[in-house]
Amino acid sequence: MSSRIESSGGSIGDLIASRVANRGLPRAFYHDQRVYRAEIDTVWRQGWLVAGHACQIPEAGDYFTYEFDGDSVIVVRGDDGGIRAFYNTCRHRGTQICTQQAGHVGRFVCPYHQWVYGRDGELLTARGMPDDLDRSQLGLAPAAVREVAGLIFVSFADEPTDFDAAQAELEPAIVPQGLAQAKVARTIDYVVAANWKLVWENNRECYHCNANHPQYIKANFDHYNADDTSGRVQTAIDAATARSHVKWAACGLEVTHKQTGMTVFPDAERDIWFAANRTPLVDGYVSETMTGQQVAPLMGQYADADVGTLRIRTLPNFWNHSSCDHSVSTQLVPTGLHQTNVRVTWLVNREAQEGIDYKLDDLLPFWQLTSEQDWELCAAAQRGINSHAYRPGPLSPYKEYNVEGFLRWYLAKLQKVR
Amino acid sequence: MSSRIESSGGSIGDLIASRVANRGLPRAFYHDQRVYRAEIDTVWRQGWLVAGHACQIPEAGDYFTYEFDGDSVIVVRGDDGGIRAFYNTCRHRGTQICTQQAGHVGRFVCPYHQWVYGRDGELLTARGMPDDLDRSQLGLAPAAVREVAGLIFVSFADEPTDFDAAQAELEPAIVPQGLAQAKVARTIDYVVAANWKLVWENNRECYHCNANHPQYIKANFDHYNADDTSGRVQTAIDAATARSHVKWAACGLEVTHKQTGMTVFPDAERDIWFAANRTPLVDGYVSETMTGQQVAPLMGQYADADVGTLRIRTLPNFWNHSSCDHSVSTQLVPTGLHQTNVRVTWLVNREAQEGIDYKLDDLLPFWQLTSEQDWELCAAAQRGINSHAYRPGPLSPYKEYNVEGFLRWYLAKLQKVR
Amino acid sequence: MSSRIESSGGSIGDLIASRVANRGLPRAFYHDQRVYRAEIDTVWRQGWLVAGHACQIPEAGDYFTYEFDGDSVIVVRGDDGGIRAFYNTCRHRGTQICTQQAGHVGRFVCPYHQWVYGRDGELLTARGMPDDLDRSQLGLAPAAVREVAGLIFVSFADEPTDFDAAQAELEPAIVPQGLAQAKVARTIDYVVAANWKLVWENNRECYHCNANHPQYIKANFDHYNADDTSGRVQTAIDAATARSHVKWAACGLEVTHKQTGMTVFPDAERDIWFAANRTPLVDGYVSETMTGQQVAPLMGQYADADVGTLRIRTLPNFWNHSSCDHSVSTQLVPTGLHQTNVRVTWLVNREAQEGIDYKLDDLLPFWQLTSEQDWELCAAAQRGINSHAYRPGPLSPYKEYNVEGFLRWYLAKLQKVR
Repeated sequence: MSSRIESSGGSIGDLIASRVANRGLPRAFYHDQRVYRAEIDTVWRQGWLVAGHACQIPEAGDYFTYEFDGDSVIVVRGDDGGIRAFYNTCRHRGTQICTQQAGHVGRFVCPYHQWVYGRDGELLTARGMPDDLDRSQLGLAPAAVREVAGLIFVSFADEPTDFDAAQAELEPAIVPQGLAQAKVARTIDYVVAANWKLVWENNRECYHCNANHPQYIKANFDHYNADDTSGRVQTAIDAATARSHVKWAACGLEVTHKQTGMTVFPDAERDIWFAANRTPLVDGYVSETMTGQQVAPLMGQYADADVGTLRIRTLPNFWNHSSCDHSVSTQLVPTGLHQTNVRVTWLVNREAQEGIDYKLDDLLPFWQLTSEQDWELCAAAQRGINSHAYRPGPLSPYKEYNVEGFLRWYLAKLQKVR
Repeated sequence: MSSRIESSGGSIGDLIASRVANRGLPRAFYHDQRVYRAEIDTVWRQGWLVAGHACQIPEAGDYFTYEFDGDSVIVVRGDDGGIRAFYNTCRHRGTQICTQQAGHVGRFVCPYHQWVYGRDGELLTARGMPDDLDRSQLGLAPAAVREVAGLIFVSFADEPTDFDAAQAELEPAIVPQGLAQAKVARTIDYVVAANWKLVWENNRECYHCNANHPQYIKANFDHYNADDTSGRVQTAIDAATARSHVKWAACGLEVTHKQTGMTVFPDAERDIWFAANRTPLVDGYVSETMTGQQVAPLMGQYADADVGTLRIRTLPNFWNHSSCDHSVSTQLVPTGLHQTNVRVTWLVNREAQEGIDYKLDDLLPFWQLTSEQDWELCAAAQRGINSHAYRPGPLSPYKEYNVEGFLRWYLAKLQKVR
Repeated sequence: MSSRIESSGGSIGDLIASRVANRGLPRAFYHDQRVYRAEIDTVWRQGWLVAGHACQIPEAGDYFTYEFDGDSVIVVRGDDGGIRAFYNTCRHRGTQICTQQAGHVGRFVCPYHQWVYGRDGELLTARGMPDDLDRSQLGLAPAAVREVAGLIFVSFADEPTDFDAAQAELEPAIVPQGLAQAKVARTIDYVVAANWKLVWENNRECYHCNANHPQYIKANFDHYNADDTSGRVQTAIDAATARSHVKWAACGLEVTHKQTGMTVFPDAERDIWFAANRTPLVDGYVSETMTGQQVAPLMGQYADADVGTLRIRTLPNFWNHSSCDHSVSTQLVPTGLHQTNVRVTWLVNREAQEGIDYKLDDLLPFWQLTSEQDWELCAAAQRGINSHAYRPGPLSPYKEYNVEGFLRWYLAKLQKVR
């Protein structure tokens, strides 16, 4: 392994300059520890990361921990119902306070010397310390946190970048899905043997769908592009769009993507790292399931199963695919130059009962299969790029415009901090 | 993992200067490979390490190997009854000579080409080499070794530091315990996911005992300190001390620690890296066992079970807790920035027979539980300090004076070689 | 582990200059990542490596992959019957094309986006790309490849060094063995915990054979050397040579090594990195098996079992020991400073049927045991050299002349590129 992880000679600026537009990235972007460190510090630590879902912590004192790059953050619902995030590090000797991934606390008690913190992070008692200890300076260190319609974002930045534009864009799109009134039906964690950028490059095109995602392509239109949208396909999507347009308008939903191919995302020039859109499914599909049929109670504000699919994505760590009856979140965490941890979470209406209102055997396969097909492709891409013979090849203007968009967005972020 | 192991920008001297007294160490002390390398080379390689116990090698030709930082040393009892240490590296092609952890040899024969060395390290025969080979220059490389009342110390230094003061202090304290007439009842090896300094910081305070060591605090007084020694506790330790003072004097033992709280150790200013003291146990305890009762034959020179507890400690790798009937040695070996191997060894009177004179189920639990409780705390401390949000917090003057003492001792050693 | 892997202070040139002739290499040659990287780039990437056997891919479209230092190469038999090698990296996004270790293809189809390449590496179709894509520039990158009498060599060099001298020397020696008409009976993969040079140092002397290879020394003469070839042994090898000389001449075979001791190899001054020689076995042995008896049908052009043993070796990654009835190839791949992957392959006549014409229980043990004995010695050597106390010792002029030869050859290669 070590032999594959190298330091390239030149600066990161030189490396960025060496990239040719509309081609992949040079090998060093996937092999140089300095690049990895730089992108963690810039793209990741300066950005907003989805840490989890508000429905995981419904009651005051409920918490979960979120791990990233050596940091652990406690995300907790406070007594005022608001969500807060604190670094999971005692202010005394630095010990990790919450050693479980999730739980409920009245107060946070460090296991080492029992310093006690409130749910608001304040240091309440510190047995054995002098009476004149200034507790006000020793509360848990806060991390920036924002909630958007049931999604919890955190930032590790000292001065987090603007979030308001994202909130304004995402909130109205997500609210109807009812993520805030959902529950987790199942979580699956994966370790993908690929650099995190390869996972995004995979996500940003459906050029690979035809041969690799037999389930997905039955339900969706976006694997067709300008070069291969036949008359029959165009007629089908036009019909689906027209039908949905009328029907959805009644329930306040909008068709926000009406063509074949993927919606354009991200946008480096305008620094658009967030997006949500709703698009019709293929005729006969009301949910991204193996049969196309609804397999769980309707979520959120939906009164009808025919709501197409809602897609949400926020760089650098999150995307979500939602149907009328379930919602699937994917979170990435880079854990090394050639390794990305991925958590996939299936959510359903919080009133739904497993075994009665839904069965996991019906709920999981569509996105479990599609996800695992992708992880294998990402790992194969990493293995091939490991070769000294790898040279960046041409991207398809029809099918990989969003790969180019992602790479431009990424390079702009990396450039900014040099 | 790699993402957590970084190089800080400044020099180690700058880092040392950045430390604030009576606070923990800055994060880089637990994360910077250069610091780790420097402390291995100074604190560890220049110091004296307990390699094992003399009773492990009772007969001439008995040996055990001791591994540290890529080095392996053979500790062997010679024909004259003395203990010697040699690097376990053949002078021909460098091959490891003893591939077992312990054994008995007439002569050392390298498995590769059968060069033969005496128990004194001398090269005796080297088949296949020219007749004029100067064997006198090709003996096994010796390592410095000293025995103190059954404990074997080695040093990897070219010019080892003074040992005489340690010998003068430790020998009379340890002799009554009879370590030289003991035998190993059980050894348990642990891999602790924490920097070695965190293991010592844990060892140097009993602030954490109340909530974490339910067995230990029943037997001992040292988890009380100036701030929380109630009248009842003070009366109890005074009574135990007085009783012991009289009773022990008859057998030539002395109460060397008479207060609650831990004895002061180490001492950076006077470079005191060794200590031993004897202190009473709580009334009703004659041994650090689950019941407080004696569970094995008396050791050494003891004629009565009521001898309190003998504590021995030598930096950077050793401590021991002894009762009338058993003795528990703990040896540390750093094996990485975030990993420490720990060996815990239970010793009993060498005449005692397992199953007849003692049962492991009675002998082990007290210190096995207490040790494992500590290893979890050390790992939690490491995980918390991994965070970029970690900042060194204040140490309790009542309860963590020995943590401060350890850190000062450590920094003085590290400073010396810069 | 990390603590043992260091960077030495000086340059590699300084390090080379510090080596004393007729002694082992200084410790840094086995511990410095820069040395490792330099030798991979020079000794390995500039050399010719045996990737496998032509008999593994008898039909057009049969392929196997060969992995080295992050690179994967597809070795395939083309439609013209010739053998070609291509980097296993798609020219589009770099994905690994063949994800199996071996197989058969009509065309190579990248699993990601289905770019299609011919068996000659040419890009045939690239669905979804613009019509004006210049496919002629996007064929699979070729690697240099040569076949010699059934052995397949590849080179990762941009400008591979001369192969003709090796071909001229090896081909006539190997052809009678019939490797091109063989089949693989069994492959065993090992991970040896030693630097690759230690594996070669082990291979280049039989000083260690007496005590470590009880099977091998019964069959061979080369563990005797000038210093210990008794009159009885000399008589035996003279008799075996004379007998073979006459007998073999009839079948066109030649005795190319007639003394005890190993044939001289390699030769740094003349850059001889390849060799083959045939030598008699001990009286009573016609095959390197546990009994000395033939255990499989004769191979190649042999009409009689009494053909002695053919030895082939090519630096830096290959050797082979062949008997009348089977042939054993050993391939090395360094996978880290302290780790070498080794593949041992047993070949027999391709007409032979397992269970009928040969049994693995008879075929494998001789070289399986001998190989595994060596891997343990190599690992013991590495462990001993890990010690800071290691100093290069003297090599025996009688028994380790080829170790010296190997080290000189290695250093000359390393020097060349500095």
